[in-house]
Amino acid sequence: MLFRQLFDAETSTYTYLIADEKTGQAALVDPVIEQVERDYKLLQELKLTLLFCVETHVHADHITGTGKLRELTNCEGIVPENANVSCATRSIKDGEVLELGGVKIQTISTPGHTDSHNAYLVTSDSNDEKFLLTGDSLFIRGCGRTDFQSGNPALMYHSITEKLFTLPDHTWVYPGHDYRGHAVSTIGEEKQNNPRLVGQTEASFINIMNNLNLPDPKKIMQAVPANQQCGKNITVLT
Amino acid sequence: MLFRQLFDAETSTYTYLIADEKTGQAALVDPVIEQVERDYKLLQELKLTLLFCVETHVHADHITGTGKLRELTNCEGIVPENANVSCATRSIKDGEVLELGGVKIQTISTPGHTDSHNAYLVTSDSNDEKFLLTGDSLFIRGCGRTDFQSGNPALMYHSITEKLFTLPDHTWVYPGHDYRGHAVSTIGEEKQNNPRLVGQTEASFINIMNNLNLPDPKKIMQAVPANQQCGKNITVLT
Repeated sequence: MLFRQLFDAETSTYTYLIADEKTGQAALVDPVIEQVERDYKLLQELKLTLLFCVETHVHADHITGTGKLRELTNCEGIVPENANVSCATRSIKDGEVLELGGVKIQTISTPGHTDSHNAYLVTSDSNDEKFLLTGDSLFIRGCGRTDFQSGNPALMYHSITEKLFTLPDHTWVYPGHDYRGHAVSTIGEEKQNNPRLVGQTEASFINIMNNLNLPDPKKIMQAVPANQQCGKNITVLT
Repeated sequence: MLFRQLFDAETSTYTYLIADEKTGQAALVDPVIEQVERDYKLLQELKLTLLFCVETHVHADHITGTGKLRELTNCEGIVPENANVSCATRSIKDGEVLELGGVKIQTISTPGHTDSHNAYLVTSDSNDEKFLLTGDSLFIRGCGRTDFQSGNPALMYHSITEKLFTLPDHTWVYPGHDYRGHAVSTIGEEKQNNPRLVGQTEASFINIMNNLNLPDPKKIMQAVPANQQCGKNITVLT
């Protein structure tokens, strides 16, 4: 399996390129519109065929590159069930699996940041490594916020503690964002060190999340409607 | 082996944490002074003992975290031979190896960006993966500049083509910087796709490097003398 983490510095967003090296079949998870040229060039250099652009959720802080990538390739645009993205070619729900040759991308429904949000567990038939793309659910020593777009801290708590924290400790955690320069963690490491979860009850977690007092993302008014159109037919304001 | 890539967004600098999981012995390569608190916390969370802070070269764009980390731990400060860093505890030259339990960090002298510059090849006795930390020699689809601090494009060309490009194609390339959001490449991928090297002769490479017309790094006047003191006794201007 080929696995690459890519970064958009303006929004601190991670995009993931996953491919089966035997067949050259590839997926991009959470591509960013400003980075489409970079990502498309990388696909060409590595001689990969993009089958899927996959979203973890409808983003509020950046616009997806899926629309542009679908113009450049014949890939599908895949979103979580009930994500209200009319232009997507397919929605996937908890337990559903996308396949790239011997690589499997398994959907884990993890609502909380938004009401329709998926994490993806990536595995390969060539070894036993597990790569968990958490989107805006579990972050490294943190988690996604829950104060807009039908966010719900109780659902976030259950998604993390009952779904993600029950995966094996050695599972790699690859988040949708990091704001402090961390690239990767593991489930075991987050269970031991994540300050929003260690020693917290559902009630105290909800209390933390309801008192973060964060400003809205700068692009929220533009990003949400644009992402509901897969980033097509929009003007990127810079 | 534990291997972590860490990022400083202000200067687009990568720091690397390498450790032997059995003994807990660790090294940081190219730590950044503003990120010492983050890096020290990570060492504590992972229950690691920092033995070495290792520099690839005397940086012109950021100040090393080595001085502060040496105040917090008992680690050594290690620099390339002839780097003119009087406060370092040790200098290492081509072929020398640092050991962390079953993990080896082998020095590859790669002058060009500066006249004393090391890359480090990290291997473990537990598998055959090779992690090449290239500092400011080979970048992903580029290379370090050669227009200050005794930089020399002919030396850079020979360091890359005769030393790094003779490593196995599957060797991971982890650079000292990336400005476009790439995290990792391989030697095989760079031999195929690096526009400064593919199809270039020594003469045409020198011509490219002598015509980049880049401005000096913002921190050069502050960073070089500060790094010659391991980042100690300096005032960080923000």
